[in-house]
Amino acid sequence: MHEEFRFLIDCGEGTQRQILQSGLGFKRLNRILITHGHLDHILGLAGLLSTFLRWETIEELEIYGGKWALDRIHDLLYGVVLRGARPPVEISLKQIKPGVIFEADSFSITAFPVWHRGPDCFGYAFQEKTRRPFLPDKAEDLQIPPGPWRRDLVAGKSVRLPDGRSIKPEEVLGPSRPGTRLVHVGDVGRTEDILEACHDADALIIEATYLEKEADMAKDFAHLTAKKAALLAMEAGVHQLILTHVSRRYREREVLAEAQSICPNTVVARDFDHFLIKRDAPAVQMTARAEKD
Amino acid sequence: MHEEFRFLIDCGEGTQRQILQSGLGFKRLNRILITHGHLDHILGLAGLLSTFLRWETIEELEIYGGKWALDRIHDLLYGVVLRGARPPVEISLKQIKPGVIFEADSFSITAFPVWHRGPDCFGYAFQEKTRRPFLPDKAEDLQIPPGPWRRDLVAGKSVRLPDGRSIKPEEVLGPSRPGTRLVHVGDVGRTEDILEACHDADALIIEATYLEKEADMAKDFAHLTAKKAALLAMEAGVHQLILTHVSRRYREREVLAEAQSICPNTVVARDFDHFLIKRDAPAVQMTARAEKD
Repeated sequence: MHEEFRFLIDCGEGTQRQILQSGLGFKRLNRILITHGHLDHILGLAGLLSTFLRWETIEELEIYGGKWALDRIHDLLYGVVLRGARPPVEISLKQIKPGVIFEADSFSITAFPVWHRGPDCFGYAFQEKTRRPFLPDKAEDLQIPPGPWRRDLVAGKSVRLPDGRSIKPEEVLGPSRPGTRLVHVGDVGRTEDILEACHDADALIIEATYLEKEADMAKDFAHLTAKKAALLAMEAGVHQLILTHVSRRYREREVLAEAQSICPNTVVARDFDHFLIKRDAPAVQMTARAEKD
Repeated sequence: MHEEFRFLIDCGEGTQRQILQSGLGFKRLNRILITHGHLDHILGLAGLLSTFLRWETIEELEIYGGKWALDRIHDLLYGVVLRGARPPVEISLKQIKPGVIFEADSFSITAFPVWHRGPDCFGYAFQEKTRRPFLPDKAEDLQIPPGPWRRDLVAGKSVRLPDGRSIKPEEVLGPSRPGTRLVHVGDVGRTEDILEACHDADALIIEATYLEKEADMAKDFAHLTAKKAALLAMEAGVHQLILTHVSRRYREREVLAEAQSICPNTVVARDFDHFLIKRDAPAVQMTARAEKD
């Protein structure tokens, strides 16, 4: 979620139920980014669309993903859910390639290739644009009146004030600051080729299906161990590591222990977790967390 | 569940997760009865099958349902889940007609037509066979030794004892007792035509999507109100009414109040509820229930 934008990354079975339970609702949930076409990442689209069939809360649904994933999603939505019926919302299946796939005024999303079982797997980097902060003290010193002049200065335009003075943006803006960078990687079996994409992320959300003691299975199924995810985070200079997709047979504390021995700033995401990610600041856990085994 | 048999009735999105969370597991869960082909009753089959793709816990999966439901399930399982891959378990889609669809030594399942949106909707009646209970006191009086003779007598066969006496089953069996009858109805818009099928059920599990104050919507979508379900239960002489499929916008106590004013023996089923149904005895709630709004 950023400003008025909401993105859902992957949509496994039961996503709809979890969204309802979380209280977040479906409003403006009109863009879904798919990392790859495995069933546990797409099946929930069927339920989501069938809910939209009855309660039309959005007008257009954009689903971004690689060709393999979109083909399967197409067959799920058109072949099973709709079966010839008119879609309740306009569905736009957006086949992506590596590069910028979405751009808004203040941020962009870049897709990058990820190696997993099956073709066309992607990770997504959310990058807030570099901006120069407005310095209210300087504006006061220069006696710039409230009104459109301040807005124009923030937007980088020179202005002429009612009293005839010309002010350049540099006079009221601080040094430029890079925006927040959030990187999301779904299932992945190899970290070398995503090192660059994860570089300097304020938060990296990435799978850690296995523990190192089952590194063989991780390799067989093209997944990561908690250790490998942590090594990637350290090497890429990631500020906060958020692990997901942990196999049910591990306890959270085992996964944490393995990762934190390498990357101290690690959490294991739980259902309904909610983080606030900021540039050069620790990620803020917005939800209370009880002790868990 | 009856003896070694387990049946799952309908398989909505997230069923797999709920089964895991319940601790019941997938063992011997090899027969699924589908009431109709609406998505909220079948989508979970995709997740279930994709789990079986990795963990083969059963050898054959039998899915019973009407043609319309099975066509959609076929496209979901073969078109979306498998996409040309070999099924991990043998999948048998069993298209049913009204009548007995399954028979075991001690019980049978009968499908009966149910009126809802779309064709081929079915309810299911589980009927334990009539049996004559073995009377141990009588067997003692007759000095029947332990061994195969008692088993044969229970099975209705006459036996000759080692001491030469002939014993007929009537001598050690009580009067015949009808078996337990459990009736499950999924989504349904009309009760007249299922009255007969629900007759004398020890428990009737049936939808109550709406309250009577929204009877118009119930009618439009071919669903029942709690009141209509309760009236059916009373008219059919049902011993215990178990309501399901309640719209999220009602509170449980409203639904209960409406139904219990007509049929006192009513409960609203919750996730993970577990009932023991016996002939001519109150249904036993096997799970603790906290107060709920």
